[in-house]
Amino acid sequence: MKKEFEYVSHKVDRSARFGEVHTPHGIFHTPAFMPVGTSGAVKAMTSSDLEECGAEIILGNTYHLYLRPGEKRIRDLGGLAEFNAWHKPTLTDSGGFQVFSMQDLSKVDDDGVTFRSHHDGSEHRFNAEKVIEIERDIGADIIMSFDQCVPYPADKGLAAAGVRRTFDWAKKGQVHFRKLEADNPTGTALFGIVQGSVYPELRKISAEQIVALGFDGNAIGGLAVGESKEEMADTLAYTIRYLPEDRPRYLMGVGYPEDILMAVSNGVDMFDCVLPTRNARTGMVFTSEGPLVFRNADCADDNRPLDPNCDCKVCRRYSRAYIRHLYNQSEITALILASYHSTYFFQNLMKDIRQAIGEGRFEVFRKDFLNRYRNQTFNSTDDA
Amino acid sequence: MKKEFEYVSHKVDRSARFGEVHTPHGIFHTPAFMPVGTSGAVKAMTSSDLEECGAEIILGNTYHLYLRPGEKRIRDLGGLAEFNAWHKPTLTDSGGFQVFSMQDLSKVDDDGVTFRSHHDGSEHRFNAEKVIEIERDIGADIIMSFDQCVPYPADKGLAAAGVRRTFDWAKKGQVHFRKLEADNPTGTALFGIVQGSVYPELRKISAEQIVALGFDGNAIGGLAVGESKEEMADTLAYTIRYLPEDRPRYLMGVGYPEDILMAVSNGVDMFDCVLPTRNARTGMVFTSEGPLVFRNADCADDNRPLDPNCDCKVCRRYSRAYIRHLYNQSEITALILASYHSTYFFQNLMKDIRQAIGEGRFEVFRKDFLNRYRNQTFNSTDDA
Repeated sequence: MKKEFEYVSHKVDRSARFGEVHTPHGIFHTPAFMPVGTSGAVKAMTSSDLEECGAEIILGNTYHLYLRPGEKRIRDLGGLAEFNAWHKPTLTDSGGFQVFSMQDLSKVDDDGVTFRSHHDGSEHRFNAEKVIEIERDIGADIIMSFDQCVPYPADKGLAAAGVRRTFDWAKKGQVHFRKLEADNPTGTALFGIVQGSVYPELRKISAEQIVALGFDGNAIGGLAVGESKEEMADTLAYTIRYLPEDRPRYLMGVGYPEDILMAVSNGVDMFDCVLPTRNARTGMVFTSEGPLVFRNADCADDNRPLDPNCDCKVCRRYSRAYIRHLYNQSEITALILASYHSTYFFQNLMKDIRQAIGEGRFEVFRKDFLNRYRNQTFNSTDDA
Repeated sequence: MKKEFEYVSHKVDRSARFGEVHTPHGIFHTPAFMPVGTSGAVKAMTSSDLEECGAEIILGNTYHLYLRPGEKRIRDLGGLAEFNAWHKPTLTDSGGFQVFSMQDLSKVDDDGVTFRSHHDGSEHRFNAEKVIEIERDIGADIIMSFDQCVPYPADKGLAAAGVRRTFDWAKKGQVHFRKLEADNPTGTALFGIVQGSVYPELRKISAEQIVALGFDGNAIGGLAVGESKEEMADTLAYTIRYLPEDRPRYLMGVGYPEDILMAVSNGVDMFDCVLPTRNARTGMVFTSEGPLVFRNADCADDNRPLDPNCDCKVCRRYSRAYIRHLYNQSEITALILASYHSTYFFQNLMKDIRQAIGEGRFEVFRKDFLNRYRNQTFNSTDDA
């Protein structure tokens, strides 16, 4: 192995954890929020923007990168971190979420899934071994086992089938991964994924199965797929107790600041979500005073920054009036400025979270943050 | 007046001129290339990007800014330089070019032009005095007289009518401008525009008329509208001889690197064009070795920067393969990276031009630049 993958704990504050993860491309601090670079770029951001915002690890989507530009091309150009000109830690998902969410284009069986490309309709097949090979070629520092993510709501039979397949594929993928690593060691870490929808007994089974395999880290999948905030919190709480403390715990696809704070409080170390940049592109940013729909008319003459309490380079320079005007003229510059601010906001939130845990005052921080965040004075949104 | 508008000559090398222009928002060096921020932003660029690239003055389009967000709103938010968070010199065109190029939506008479908004079809009217008022509200450091730009080709009768109206409107606008400045001095400079299509005798008449009015600077309009490169060069050469040496000379809407070099050789000080960023958005950048169509398949595995001889932050970090991939996935990040590089390329060209003139070797620089620029080795384009 090039370098040992390692989770180092700095401080535990009740259940909240501050630590760091060592990877072949360096260290990232946890709790970490991973911006999502679907096709190799976080939308409307550059790698240097991401660095400036404080991101230490970014995510790439296996499904998208496999289709274009293709995993072999990325491998031949030096792997994902080099291809992206990012040169820091990266993680790839398993592609399962994308493939299973395109129900018209995919067909699942016990061995894997056959699907059609959303680009050209060409037929492709993913299974446990194939996904491991693709992810190794893409070359992220952390790769995810192939899993079956069931939609919400899912009846218990479907959820149980998802748990069974996820375990089966996790085992097969791990065997294949270990064989490939033995032949050609890379230092890549492989994470398992717990499924089970919102059924406590299925989550328990899945967690115990996945944890028994001894992955480098453990993820909770199948949340943030439409369930209520209460169901998410409950499911997380009764699932995470089965995940070992000596390895990173990753809550996939989450999320909103309040969800991140809830999950950190439960002991989650890693997050990813498209929310900051996706919402920016629809005219909404996250601020310390809550979500701001900057496209609205009440920003037309507002010379204040997007977030008066933010010190990012966008808030230090540009007004709501300007960004709102550009957004309404369909100017790309509006998307750049809004995406940058919201990405910075999330990274800054994680930095504050880590500091609060380090100082043993996470729950106070959480309460103070939410008090300010929920006491919106300027405008409201249905996004939050 | 807040500050005197002033052109200071540093060096004349044959006819090429190196100097600087003083404005209320500071100095810009000439020959200068002004990136075009149509609606208040250069597309896919931020104000700090423009600064980094070395731009010292940017252009705003009066037609677009008048319609949205409206000149009064910009005025109330501090004027164009402040609204854009640019804080440096700006120039607005007269709106004439836009209005006259929308022939289906506009109707010209001797007093001005009635046109419909491309947004909502609402009816508006521009004339010499109104345009001066709008431009003063927008608040650029340099504003342009309202002119009639005729299409190419134009018969001599139409071109002559354009010259007559342009002179009439220049006089009326100047009278109105002087009255407004007397009441409320701002330090704004007003430039006149020479028209006359590609007819030498009309260009002579127009130049003598406009110069006689004693504007702060003089522009050559009506070129880069479809005429051949030879016609552009000939028209420029026989027009510029009438423009006084003690004031800036501005060639509107130009252009390609080879055209800029030709025009500088004739004594032009200022340029503007959407070319660097517009072409970037269609998959082509300008490089020291000529235009590069980076969207093409021959860039798919090319780990070199867009321009191997460029030291901009994009060329120091990102590969053609990466930018090509992002472009083909319709990722905004591709447009950001390509727009940045080409903007830097043009600003760097102007810096090199100024240095060469300062050192009395402009024609040698021009020849060397074009030798390398035209000796394309990687791929070709029909854009150049």
